[in-house]
Amino acid sequence: MAETIRHYNSKGWSPATSTNYSFRDQDGVIWVSRSGVDKSLFEAEDFITVNNEGLSIGQYEGIKPSAETLIHCVLYELFPDTKVILHSHSVYPVLMSALMDHELIFKGYEVQKGFAGEITHEKDVCVPIFDNTQDMTEFKETLKFQVSRICHHSFVMRKHGAYAWGKDLFEAKRHLETLDYLCQCEWMLKNHSDL
Amino acid sequence: MAETIRHYNSKGWSPATSTNYSFRDQDGVIWVSRSGVDKSLFEAEDFITVNNEGLSIGQYEGIKPSAETLIHCVLYELFPDTKVILHSHSVYPVLMSALMDHELIFKGYEVQKGFAGEITHEKDVCVPIFDNTQDMTEFKETLKFQVSRICHHSFVMRKHGAYAWGKDLFEAKRHLETLDYLCQCEWMLKNHSDL
Amino acid sequence: MAETIRHYNSKGWSPATSTNYSFRDQDGVIWVSRSGVDKSLFEAEDFITVNNEGLSIGQYEGIKPSAETLIHCVLYELFPDTKVILHSHSVYPVLMSALMDHELIFKGYEVQKGFAGEITHEKDVCVPIFDNTQDMTEFKETLKFQVSRICHHSFVMRKHGAYAWGKDLFEAKRHLETLDYLCQCEWMLKNHSDL
Amino acid sequence: MAETIRHYNSKGWSPATSTNYSFRDQDGVIWVSRSGVDKSLFEAEDFITVNNEGLSIGQYEGIKPSAETLIHCVLYELFPDTKVILHSHSVYPVLMSALMDHELIFKGYEVQKGFAGEITHEKDVCVPIFDNTQDMTEFKETLKFQVSRICHHSFVMRKHGAYAWGKDLFEAKRHLETLDYLCQCEWMLKNHSDL
Repeated sequence: MAETIRHYNSKGWSPATSTNYSFRDQDGVIWVSRSGVDKSLFEAEDFITVNNEGLSIGQYEGIKPSAETLIHCVLYELFPDTKVILHSHSVYPVLMSALMDHELIFKGYEVQKGFAGEITHEKDVCVPIFDNTQDMTEFKETLKFQVSRICHHSFVMRKHGAYAWGKDLFEAKRHLETLDYLCQCEWMLKNHSDL
Repeated sequence: MAETIRHYNSKGWSPATSTNYSFRDQDGVIWVSRSGVDKSLFEAEDFITVNNEGLSIGQYEGIKPSAETLIHCVLYELFPDTKVILHSHSVYPVLMSALMDHELIFKGYEVQKGFAGEITHEKDVCVPIFDNTQDMTEFKETLKFQVSRICHHSFVMRKHGAYAWGKDLFEAKRHLETLDYLCQCEWMLKNHSDL
Repeated sequence: MAETIRHYNSKGWSPATSTNYSFRDQDGVIWVSRSGVDKSLFEAEDFITVNNEGLSIGQYEGIKPSAETLIHCVLYELFPDTKVILHSHSVYPVLMSALMDHELIFKGYEVQKGFAGEITHEKDVCVPIFDNTQDMTEFKETLKFQVSRICHHSFVMRKHGAYAWGKDLFEAKRHLETLDYLCQCEWMLKNHSDL
Repeated sequence: MAETIRHYNSKGWSPATSTNYSFRDQDGVIWVSRSGVDKSLFEAEDFITVNNEGLSIGQYEGIKPSAETLIHCVLYELFPDTKVILHSHSVYPVLMSALMDHELIFKGYEVQKGFAGEITHEKDVCVPIFDNTQDMTEFKETLKFQVSRICHHSFVMRKHGAYAWGKDLFEAKRHLETLDYLCQCEWMLKNHSDL
């Protein structure tokens, strides 16, 4: 997983020290990337354990987890099958979220099948956009309240980035890369067809 | 060939677990990439043998080949000299296929000579676009019926991706990279000259 | 640091032999990259010591430091906590500086928090643009005179490139990558929303 | 030099098997890349010796040099200090040559100083565009006749690619990368400012 994080960094998905990642182990314990690490240097040791309120626990007490840890915690609560959560600042979801109001709608792309359960390009895929906020407690409530809008294991925060998750690293990666690819195609097509 | 597949993945040509690849060995047996493999981790062992109906055979019976295996089978039938078939989801053919109706026409690019038999930039190159479908049996018939439209060892499926092939890996790569390059140039020029 | 320089080169941030870099060691001595090195081959040995007037000193006397050494010297003087200064010719700051008059304003991006001291996306970030010049003595005076415009450890020279710095390599990288990312997003959004 | 060729391939500057390269050794003998090599696999052994008419000589007699060998030969004749010639199909010079009539003009970019002899961004740089042709003997005459238009060790062939050269590999690289960077910036700015 640390390898995936460094790979995404090399693609420019975690500029500066931004973005964050987590997994839930076989005992149900949540491990979150600690705050402020240069993701090009991320190591397995940079994951720390947190409780459901997003506070570091056990041997890691006192070490600061990522500022967005509470988002990870509430996603594990709302989607119990989730084992891995990835977050990216890649530009295309950010740009699309600056352009669109409430959601991203993808139509007719073969790659839509990258989302679990999708078996045809003929069914539209809809991913919600939430406004960005620094108040994680407030955002936790927003997610709980609007959970029914999340149908494809992912959402976008406006001018911030994409979250995607899955039942293992393999599926979480597939969902994040699918969302990023679809955002790239839509962005480029929108730039064109608006002409 | 596995190396080529991983290389194309690193270029973003196979987002999520998408795309598929095949070759025909000296005994005429078709080997296709199995379904659902993360292409960044693709190994030679991920190729499995299939019969002309696209079903896995021999020691691989029961392992699921790529969902698009039937496309590979019919291409080997229609173009008997073909030994290697490559498929890509790189964005430029996808974008061009969203923009154009039935075909891509390339004019005056030196790189058109990348297609076997082309010896000048002065002759237009025309690559067909087929509508995307999940029904492989239907698409097999479409290809057979419209085979005369395919003059440059390649075609594009709408909002899906590019197929290209050749008498060996070297030629198949040359055709796929030629098509991708021409799509990139045309996309960028179209974005401009429409203004 | 040499590794960072080679990495930025691989991203296309130092075309030809361009750009320059420096650090100030624990004794307060300034080390600047020497002139004309291909940054893909940059080694630690390519740093040479200079005095506050930008002239090479000590064992390096006579070796030509980067033509922009005086900029580094005056930045260390104006911002005493600075230990590392990075310079990039990446295209997005260059393009934005060709488009905008006096400054770049970033609004509502999460990544704005990459600048030291920024804790919310809700506060605008403003980075000054200075006209390019070959007269380093003149530009040194411009910087001194307009130092109050520099609030985020960085500025852009028009159609030239970005400068960013920090109290260590880690922070300097974070500032440069933050500025580049924000310029990329703004450039792409501006291209769109002007339509 | 083989390393540079493989590096440019990884940047997408030699799609398919295209582009070609040469150098002139201390005895004045011209070595040109042989025809049809996948540039991702290029080795020092893929250079062969040719005479001034572009025919392979010595131990390499009978091996086909690049189709554009005659261009290299005439450039060595017209610019006697030249030791290395590089050719690229990178998209930005190709796109700019599709857009502009006779020449590319660059104004006010710091990176213009990447061309030998340029010491300020304030002097315009002008690089000629020649129409593409498959007739190398004809093009050789065009180059001889219009040699005075070539002032910056480089030119562009329309919808084909860029040629750049220098007194060593270091300078030839600097000229090619300078031209590519300036074409990228101009292309992106033109896309914008035409709006």
